Amino acid sequence: MSREPDAEYAAGDLRSTGMSLKHDRTWDYELDRILRAVDERAADTVGLQFPEGLKRRGPRVADDLRAALPDGVDVMISGKPCYGACDLDTYLMRRTDVFVHFGHSPMKESEKIIYVPLFSNVEVTPIMREALAELPAPAPDADPESGDRPAVGLVTTAQHMNRFDEMRSWLEARGYRVQTRRGDERLTHEGQVLGCNYASADVDADHVLYVGGGKFHPLGLAMEHPDTEVVIADPVNNVVSVADTETFVKQRYGAVHRAMDAEEWGVIFCTKIGQGRWETAREIVRQNDDAYLLTMDEVTPDRLRNFGLDAYVNTGCPRITTDDGPQFDRPMVTPQEYRIAIGEEPLEALEFDTFHGTW
Amino acid sequence: MSREPDAEYAAGDLRSTGMSLKHDRTWDYELDRILRAVDERAADTVGLQFPEGLKRRGPRVADDLRAALPDGVDVMISGKPCYGACDLDTYLMRRTDVFVHFGHSPMKESEKIIYVPLFSNVEVTPIMREALAELPAPAPDADPESGDRPAVGLVTTAQHMNRFDEMRSWLEARGYRVQTRRGDERLTHEGQVLGCNYASADVDADHVLYVGGGKFHPLGLAMEHPDTEVVIADPVNNVVSVADTETFVKQRYGAVHRAMDAEEWGVIFCTKIGQGRWETAREIVRQNDDAYLLTMDEVTPDRLRNFGLDAYVNTGCPRITTDDGPQFDRPMVTPQEYRIAIGEEPLEALEFDTFHGTW
Repeated sequence: MSREPDAEYAAGDLRSTGMSLKHDRTWDYELDRILRAVDERAADTVGLQFPEGLKRRGPRVADDLRAALPDGVDVMISGKPCYGACDLDTYLMRRTDVFVHFGHSPMKESEKIIYVPLFSNVEVTPIMREALAELPAPAPDADPESGDRPAVGLVTTAQHMNRFDEMRSWLEARGYRVQTRRGDERLTHEGQVLGCNYASADVDADHVLYVGGGKFHPLGLAMEHPDTEVVIADPVNNVVSVADTETFVKQRYGAVHRAMDAEEWGVIFCTKIGQGRWETAREIVRQNDDAYLLTMDEVTPDRLRNFGLDAYVNTGCPRITTDDGPQFDRPMVTPQEYRIAIGEEPLEALEFDTFHGTW
Repeated sequence: MSREPDAEYAAGDLRSTGMSLKHDRTWDYELDRILRAVDERAADTVGLQFPEGLKRRGPRVADDLRAALPDGVDVMISGKPCYGACDLDTYLMRRTDVFVHFGHSPMKESEKIIYVPLFSNVEVTPIMREALAELPAPAPDADPESGDRPAVGLVTTAQHMNRFDEMRSWLEARGYRVQTRRGDERLTHEGQVLGCNYASADVDADHVLYVGGGKFHPLGLAMEHPDTEVVIADPVNNVVSVADTETFVKQRYGAVHRAMDAEEWGVIFCTKIGQGRWETAREIVRQNDDAYLLTMDEVTPDRLRNFGLDAYVNTGCPRITTDDGPQFDRPMVTPQEYRIAIGEEPLEALEFDTFHGTW
């Protein structure tokens, strides 16, 4: 499907409101690959796991599979929340012959798992064109081969990774030196960022262009790289903006300040396969007689409320702490914020919590 | 602690309001048994699992254990919801050398698990005395040895099981023939009921006296045994009442009627160790092309909402369906209610969903 931005904008420009309609998106579920695996493994059971936003498609994918599968093969859909490749439904994985994880790139390859990435079909260059206004302008007559071209980092999410080469070429053709790298082993692709890992933005450039949906990733990126201007080209919501960390930082300072009064701490060890930081959690509990180790998969306000402790350190997904934190009754902080709250580090040292490695 | 009902009632009789204060309760956490197991197994890790209402005690139990344990033994508390012995935190169980499950009697013995029952210290006979008004009165001069004494069934929950013999003797001394039995293998003790299993009330008596907190269990009991009058002697909230199933039945009929319009069904297979009914779930999905198997541990409105199906059959804990059902956006029914909704059984056949066996 090709976008026609001019026609769309004519009716009323919703680009900066966040209210513009999402593009219709279609996905390739790679059913042939799944059917082949069922055949090769003589599978009796197939497990399907979708991210939250795509769970609604699950029954339709099951329909298509069931129509093509041999009789007697059971298709099961994971009903547990799923927020990333760090969050495999290990119960379903262990109990099905073929286990398919949709919508995320592999955090760790496994013969057991079929990862179906679900690349977006949304065009990216129209919104990148608008984003140029936020990037340093190349000299009109600059030699494309010279070193004078402005450097710009380029990152995206797994969803748009199929267009990464197109993004790079497009920027190069407009006079930019495009700086990219692959992050650490937690990331599959060059230029890919996760909500918890921005190592691919460690490039030599004052500006990084993030092409992707939402503000979730670029805000983390801007926090992790405070000296870099992060320009957001969002082809899904049709918005260009620059990541602003001020509100975010204030919220974190607020949480840390409130946590300073805590007498008793809950230290959350997350049991999701790719979210466990056992050494971090254990170290805190061993050094603080008023800290208690709590194990759980989903970290929710209800679950913590039952314990009635004064504050919580979440060693699992940092995005739960930072994005959902305000929904919790008690302050929830990252491991570094905990060290600030108990006086081991100064407030100014506050950094975004990132996650490295796999499992 | 002994109750003094007369003094308590003088200040304002809250017995029937459900507003009376709960008794102070103290629990024996059997720390010596846990410490002995740590020693015998040379354990490095201890996992503790508490029911929701006792999670707040977790940190205090951890304090006491840590004070007595050798250095370097890590104590972890399960932060996942827990509603019964059917609901072991298998993650924590598999990853700790000593795993302690508090507050429920064993559903299945295992060398790995230490079950600490946490018997209530609340006196039961004062409220049983009040409950006599709801039971058939023995003839004043009846021969205690004769068969003319009125029969009354007696059941309680794991929490009050330590006083079961006292309950029985007390009733016998007042002229009753006390009918008790042990249920099926899901139940540990004679006279014990679970929220999902009332087999111990299959006795030859028109009246069953339930001694225990809340209306959760006796309502299920009354549904499961519709010809029996279930008298509730609640020593925790200090209330006597008779279980009334009318509201409950209306709610179930409402759910079934709404589910009759469903075109697409989600069939929930619960992954909690003691709540799986795989054959039941699979059978429904195999026989209905518009039914989709969803696997999950916690069954919550949020999780089902993501799938956007028209109605749900819950093959897991029946109490989630019946007690929490009204909180869900879409009708959720038990397996039998599903058969009624699709026309395989008549509405009048509606029975309470119970759960048998272990795993």
